Order: sequence, then C-alpha cells, then structure tokens
Amino acid sequence: MKRRINLIIKNASELITMRSAKAGPRCGHDMHELEIIADGAVAVDKDKIIDVGRSKTIAAKYQAAKTIDAGGKTVTPGLIDAHTHPVFAGDRSNEFEMRLKGATYQEISAAGGGIKSTVKAVRKASEKELVHISLPRLESFISCGTTTIDAKSGYGLTLDDELKMLRVIRDLGKIQPLELIPTFLGAHEIPPEYQGRKNEYVKLITEQMIPAVINDKLAEFCDIFCEKGVFEIEESRYILDFARKHGLKIKLHADEFAPLGGAELAAELGAISADHLMAVSDKGIRAMKEKGVIAVLLPGTTFTLGLKNYAPARKIIDNGNPMALATDFNPGTCFCESLPAIMNIACTQMKMTPAEALTATTINAAWAIGRGESLGSMERGKQADLVIWNIPSYKHIPYHFGVNLAMAVIKRGKRVI
Amino acid sequence: MKRRINLIIKNASELITMRSAKAGPRCGHDMHELEIIADGAVAVDKDKIIDVGRSKTIAAKYQAAKTIDAGGKTVTPGLIDAHTHPVFAGDRSNEFEMRLKGATYQEISAAGGGIKSTVKAVRKASEKELVHISLPRLESFISCGTTTIDAKSGYGLTLDDELKMLRVIRDLGKIQPLELIPTFLGAHEIPPEYQGRKNEYVKLITEQMIPAVINDKLAEFCDIFCEKGVFEIEESRYILDFARKHGLKIKLHADEFAPLGGAELAAELGAISADHLMAVSDKGIRAMKEKGVIAVLLPGTTFTLGLKNYAPARKIIDNGNPMALATDFNPGTCFCESLPAIMNIACTQMKMTPAEALTATTINAAWAIGRGESLGSMERGKQADLVIWNIPSYKHIPYHFGVNLAMAVIKRGKRVI
Repeated sequence: MKRRINLIIKNASELITMRSAKAGPRCGHDMHELEIIADGAVAVDKDKIIDVGRSKTIAAKYQAAKTIDAGGKTVTPGLIDAHTHPVFAGDRSNEFEMRLKGATYQEISAAGGGIKSTVKAVRKASEKELVHISLPRLESFISCGTTTIDAKSGYGLTLDDELKMLRVIRDLGKIQPLELIPTFLGAHEIPPEYQGRKNEYVKLITEQMIPAVINDKLAEFCDIFCEKGVFEIEESRYILDFARKHGLKIKLHADEFAPLGGAELAAELGAISADHLMAVSDKGIRAMKEKGVIAVLLPGTTFTLGLKNYAPARKIIDNGNPMALATDFNPGTCFCESLPAIMNIACTQMKMTPAEALTATTINAAWAIGRGESLGSMERGKQADLVIWNIPSYKHIPYHFGVNLAMAVIKRGKRVI
Repeated sequence: MKRRINLIIKNASELITMRSAKAGPRCGHDMHELEIIADGAVAVDKDKIIDVGRSKTIAAKYQAAKTIDAGGKTVTPGLIDAHTHPVFAGDRSNEFEMRLKGATYQEISAAGGGIKSTVKAVRKASEKELVHISLPRLESFISCGTTTIDAKSGYGLTLDDELKMLRVIRDLGKIQPLELIPTFLGAHEIPPEYQGRKNEYVKLITEQMIPAVINDKLAEFCDIFCEKGVFEIEESRYILDFARKHGLKIKLHADEFAPLGGAELAAELGAISADHLMAVSDKGIRAMKEKGVIAVLLPGTTFTLGLKNYAPARKIIDNGNPMALATDFNPGTCFCESLPAIMNIACTQMKMTPAEALTATTINAAWAIGRGESLGSMERGKQADLVIWNIPSYKHIPYHFGVNLAMAVIKRGKRVI
C-alpha cells in the first residue's frame, strides 16, 4: 500500500541533495562531496520533504496528488541568500555612472549620493510604500531560485525608521512566499545628524534600538558595519556584545576594505558569520576556523566596484573554514538579486568550483542564517524548498550565465514559480 | 484626421531613440549623446517605425489598433549582438570546471575538451537535431532584449558540415522571430584530420567552402580566427581577400591573446569589424580608426576565463574609434545569451558608461553586422525592433544585473515576448 502524499518531483537528470554524513556547515574537501542522484526523485508532503531517491524507488513507495516530471533537468534545494539589503527607496543609477566615470567616494557623497541618499529616501517613505517597492525585488529573488534570504534594516538609522524597516521585512514575509530572516543593522552607518557624536549614536543603538527590536520580536540577528572610519573594533565589540547578551544572534560586515580585525572579533564573540572579508588577515581566517565562524563572501560587490582584490576564497576553503556566498543585494554596490550570477562570479573570478559554489548557497548559507537544521538540503523532515533548473547538470548554474535557468521553484511544498 | 497604424508604445519614462545627426557608427563623445525623450512614444505600422516623439504629439497624429502603456518604463531599440556562435551540440560544463581547478588548455584538450569536442558533436548531429537544440538559445537571446544576432558557423570544419551549420542558421531564421545574419567561419580552427597540413585546409576553404557558401547564398560575412598557432596573418589575408573578392563582407577574430597584427590586417583589407582585441596594439587601434573598422569587444570571454587584461575599451573609445559590444555566445569561453550581462561587465570591468554600452549594442552593433541603414535606432522607415524595459532609466540595464529586465520585445512590429 503506497503512502499518499502531496508532491513528487521525478526523473531529474541530477538530484543534488546536499545531504552529508556530518551535521553543520561544510568545509574544505566536504564542499565537493555532493550526493548526486541520477534519475532522482524527491517526495514532499505538506511543507516537508519526506524522502529522496531513485525515481523508481520513490514511485514504489508513494502515491502523489501531483507529480512534476523533471526529465533532463536538475533539482537542488532552494538557494539561500545569507546577506541582503532588500528594503530601500530612491534611485542610485546616477551614482553607478559617476563611479564608472572615475568619481571618488567623496565626490559621490558631495553630489548627494552614497548610502546617505538611501537613508534619506527610506526615512521619507511610509511602511506601505516600502512594502510596495520591495515586493518586485522579492519576486526577482524567487525567480532566480532563491527561497530564503537574510534581510537587513540599516537605512533608517533612527529608532522609528529602523523599527519601520524591520516591520516592513516582517510584513513582506507574510504576503509573498520568499522567507525573510530579519537582521537589525542600526549600526550600518553614522547618520548625518550624529556626525562627530558617534558615541551618542552607539548609545541610541544599545539603549533604545536593540531593546525595542527585542521587545517587538523584529529581528533574529544583530549585524554591524565594522570598518575603518565607521564602527571601529571597540564600538563593534560593545554593540555586538550587548546584542548577544540580550538574546540576538550576531554577525558582522568585517574586513571589507581595511584589515581591521573584524574576523578576529567575530571569532572572539562567537558570531555566526563574518561577511565580506576582502581584506581579511591569515590570523583572522585561522581564528574564524577555530570558532566555526562562517565566512560569507560577497563577490558581487567587488565585481560591481570593478576592484581586483576579491576575498581570498581559495585560501579560506583550503584552510578548512566553512564558507557561504551571498548577493549583498543593495542599491549602491551590488544591484543583483540572483545567486546564480554570484556563483558565476565566484567561480570565474575567485576560482571556486561549481560544487563549492552550490554548497555555499544552500547548506552552508542555511547555517549562516541560523537555519541549518531546517533548510539547505533535501533530508526527511526539512522544509520542502526546491528548485528545478532547466539544465542537465548543476555545473551549468555558474557556467551558463546572464539568463534565468530556474524553471520551477517550490517553497514550503508549494510551487510558486 | 488621424492616420491609422498598427501599434503605439506610449508614456515611456525614457524613450532612447539612438538617432543621430550623423550617419554611420558612433564614436568618441558621440557615444554619449543619447536622444532621450521623456514621456516618449513610438509609432509603428506593419514592420516599420514611422514616428517617435512625446506621447501627446504621437497621440494627436495617429490612431493605433494596439497601444502598449510603457508608463514608468524605458524603451530602446532592440539590442543587436554582433558576434555569436549559437549553433552547437555537446556539453562543455566539465571543461568549465576543469579550467577553474587550474587545468591548462593542453590538459583540457587531452581530456577531450576544447573546441574540438564541439566540432565532434556538431559533425555527429543532424540538421534537425541542431535546429532543435539551438532553438531554446534563440529564445533566451530574445528574452534578454536581443532582436538580431550575427550567427557563425565554424564547428563543422568540413565542406558538408559547414554548409549544414549555415543551413541550420538559415532555417532557424525562418521558424522563430530572432533575426540571424549568417557568417561563414570555416577558418575557426584547423580540424584534427588536417593537423600538419594547414595549407590543404586553407585550400579546402577557398576552393570548395567559400564557392559553395556563395553559390547557396548561405552567408553574408566571412570570418576567421586569426591567432598565433591557428590562422596566422598571411593565411588570414589570403582567405579574407579571397572571400572579399568573391562577394562576402569580411570580419575577423583579431588580437585576442597575442598582438599578431589582426587589427592592422582588418584595416588593410577593409573589414567591417575586428573582434576581441584584448591584445590590440596602439598602431592597430589607429589603423582601424583610419579605415573605419568597427572594434567589436567581447568582455564576456575575458570575464569567463578569469583573465585581468580586458580589451582597452577606454583607449579605443577615447581615440575616436567606432565600437560595438557582443556576447561571443559559445560553449567554451562565454555561455551567455544576455547582452545586458555583457553591458554590465563592460561598464564595471572596462569602465564604459551606460550610454556607451547602449550605443555599442544598438546602432554601432547594427553597423558591425551590415545593418546600419535598417536597424539599431528608432527612425522613420527603420525596422520596428523594440524593447520595453521594466526600469525607469536606461542606466539600469548595466546597473541592475543578474535578472531579466526586458518585459516586452517587439520584432518587425510584432510583440514576441
């Protein structure tokens, strides 16, 4: 007697489960050990995966209300984007052009550009407006095969505007299928009205913002832009330590442009991840490995800025650190919702392999957003977030670029694309 | 009394006509002088553009059977891809992975990879099979906003297989809307069976292939891979001169890896374009300018190969040379049908501006494929090939990457997407 279930996806030329004997994020050689089931199938009931195997085996065990034939196509877990800034207002395409013409950061800032222009636009916008203009972006994420994202505040920089952004993120999660993990990033920049009074802004963050965020249950993570001239190591330690003690998980923008020691701080504080790492030191890489801090690399920003010094992905992987890739979707330095585009950049510019890039955007990204137990791989009991790709092998995801290869996206067991 | 016509596209936030006071491809500062009509409209009758202007003006003059509201969106001429290899069989994703792991060209070749593997697969495939596997690629081109492509043979390398490829290109043009300009590229590589007998292969090209191609009217252009160790300058001159004298227009793959003098040869022979140019000399750039040879840059290959030495786009533009951008879509070094992706790479990695990148993929690309009089801009009498982009300004085409921004594509006056 076959068990009745909701959905079977069958006949995949490659079904990439991302299962592993070991729990936790993968690192080193383990990033290559993909379980690839040829002629594979996955069985789904309600919002959960209940089985994976050869199509014949699955067909013998289950009777599904709906079957999708993935013949000649590749099936993977839904991609997970561990670092995004999806809620913003305004238009910074002029700044993109200015930078190409050689304008410096200072010139762009003097012309009203940079992050401050986004802060200005976000403060002006209502919650309703922010929901409205963010929705199509979330559709773009899903259409490219992403089923869950980290979503940061950080363009409000007042108590009210940061809470507003986090409520927008909460509400967006309720009205469309993409899952958003909320991250409080009040320490994204020193707001203009606090110039020269950074300590007072730090006080505002710890004494008012973080308590309010926790009270309203608006974020799981606290993040900070730890960078020379923005939040230095001491201030970052103070804010993150405070957030952690009050119950938020922590991560940080670390060592993006200057080797400030953000990676070491991440290890010291037990952060879940340290992100960017273009300028990370060898000591920082070792410290992160020791404490299991996940390196979240964002090569789309390096690429967009036209810089040559990508984060040392090979060194990080070969050292045995766990690593994830993310878009850093934002209007200034990476206007890109597509993780496949980032995987392509990671492979061609940082010499990651397709297997490493897929590991870094599924199971490792799940751990980087605190969802390693429930997302990121096809295993019995995990949430049924799946992508059917119109390609014969997963290697085509980074190989065939510029076009959308995702032909079907399943979120919580339901087909949404 | 209003004139009755087929189609009006109205209310565009930006209608970019690409019209210019001067005929011919644009160069230097002229690549920046975009005519941008705010609240713009374009009037189409049958397969031709008949007028452009402000929406009110167009509405006062014409009554259309169909009207598309492009409110808040950008309208441009259909993009033109001046260099592609869209017909091939086989799968080279393993080679992509091998290269990332550090395999040399020789190692890839020894493992059965490289262009020779594509030649083997194309020779095996029937015309019907080649049509079948190429069709989805043409759909991808269109879905990304491209309405016309140069389409090369060059994976057959026998008389029969080259003619087969060109017939596939001809037939593909008849059964779907993307327009293909056929280019004979029998001199793409020395086929394995002619190793050590290059002169005999050159003879086969000139004495048999070119006459047959001309007799069957299967190509407009003759192209050649002019590169150290493949077809050197003397052989390239011989073949191209022969092709030109027998009525084919000529273009060449020039100075891609070694500064062989391909650009100078293009100038000497009056080629329409010289393509690649990563290693072009200053002398070559000057010679091309003098003779009006269009530089067709293909930064997607430099990017895919993870190389740092992009073609000197700024030097070429600032020297006043006409220039176009193309994908070089092919299974080895650039598996990408998307010109917007290439525009993004051109801007971020070669410091082209969005205006230069759009000029290089519309009017200049039209001249590079011999269609400057009929395609590439919105002017009365030109073919109605148009794209409506889901963005407020054309600058978003290279700025917002990894996702498909084309929301409607018009080919010969008919909406095809």
